[in-house]
Amino acid sequence: MAEWTDPMTEEEKRQAVIDLLGVLAFAELTAFERLAGDASLAPTLADKAALGAMATAEFGHYRVLHDRLESLGVDSTVAMAPFVEPLNAFHDQTTPADWLESLVKAYVGDGFAADFYREVAELMDEDTQALVVDVLDDTGHAEFAVAHVRSATEADPAVAGRLALWARRLVGEALVQAQRVAVDRDALARLIVGGVGDLVAVGELLARLTQRHSERMETLGLQP
Amino acid sequence: MAEWTDPMTEEEKRQAVIDLLGVLAFAELTAFERLAGDASLAPTLADKAALGAMATAEFGHYRVLHDRLESLGVDSTVAMAPFVEPLNAFHDQTTPADWLESLVKAYVGDGFAADFYREVAELMDEDTQALVVDVLDDTGHAEFAVAHVRSATEADPAVAGRLALWARRLVGEALVQAQRVAVDRDALARLIVGGVGDLVAVGELLARLTQRHSERMETLGLQP
Repeated sequence: MAEWTDPMTEEEKRQAVIDLLGVLAFAELTAFERLAGDASLAPTLADKAALGAMATAEFGHYRVLHDRLESLGVDSTVAMAPFVEPLNAFHDQTTPADWLESLVKAYVGDGFAADFYREVAELMDEDTQALVVDVLDDTGHAEFAVAHVRSATEADPAVAGRLALWARRLVGEALVQAQRVAVDRDALARLIVGGVGDLVAVGELLARLTQRHSERMETLGLQP
Repeated sequence: MAEWTDPMTEEEKRQAVIDLLGVLAFAELTAFERLAGDASLAPTLADKAALGAMATAEFGHYRVLHDRLESLGVDSTVAMAPFVEPLNAFHDQTTPADWLESLVKAYVGDGFAADFYREVAELMDEDTQALVVDVLDDTGHAEFAVAHVRSATEADPAVAGRLALWARRLVGEALVQAQRVAVDRDALARLIVGGVGDLVAVGELLARLTQRHSERMETLGLQP
């Protein structure tokens, strides 16, 4: 295995791009399934339709990533394969117990992941960057989740404590799985550390992610 | 309550159209959820993506129906409301035990329902007819289901017997719920019987539906 500080070959850089597109494609496919599942649990027909529209938008994002992978000559199922297990493990560990937990997961969890993916994309070529920014575009879910969670915590402040603990668990589990991926996917991990500069810069990246996470928690009316 | 043979007022005809669009809108929303749920169970990533694409297409159909209802000045959630309970009861009674049962349900059950809705639409104005034919357009699910079910029954002929029984149960449950709807939705039922002509003609309609059902069963390699 190469050292973190070794310069990356073109082939390694290409693999890092494929990895990022692959993990995002599987994440979007999973987001689609999760939102469609939430639609089944939605308390009203209007909420059901709103979640269905968001699920459909996520599937559109998956399709964009799939097409880009194909145009790079890569079978998207091959590119997604390494990320199926860690992402499924994350979701199995963080199955929402109810509708509010699923909204917090969508806003806080997906928001955290999106920030991370955007930071990684900044280390890549411009085409990849533009595509990633595009597919991470919010599908209306953030506003939907904020409105529903805020009205629930205002109606019953005790709910806020439970949801704040839930959000902390989400981020903890996400970091566990991210570490697993970093160990498995050498090219991606090297690109991140090498691209960011050094471990001090990686610390700064984590600080930025944490800062934005706190802002989202405040938007929901939850203790970060 | 009016007699079957009384001429229908314009308002009653309008209500029958709204009923048809409402039941179809809820059926499409449910098809979307069901296909997305099947995507979670799909054995491969390629199947998952294929089911996701079909689910997304069904949601597109829902949106078309929603927009038509809005343009008629009708809140789509109000139009769907009377059909939520009977359709949910049908799906609760016919939860597939596995992947193959869900494919048979999609092909045989949805095919039967689509034939029925198309027959009803023929009794309505041209705009409604065209819209209904459009949203009942197959989203690729039929071919997908046929390919998977045929290869499963060829590999293990015993499976065919189980799936044939399952298909019979599906149609039975569908007829039970259709009867409930007919009793509840006076305008829709009167339009069907009145539009078709008389009870002999209704019998002929049922014979056509049964004939097409048998053809689908044969396509799957199952005893009708």
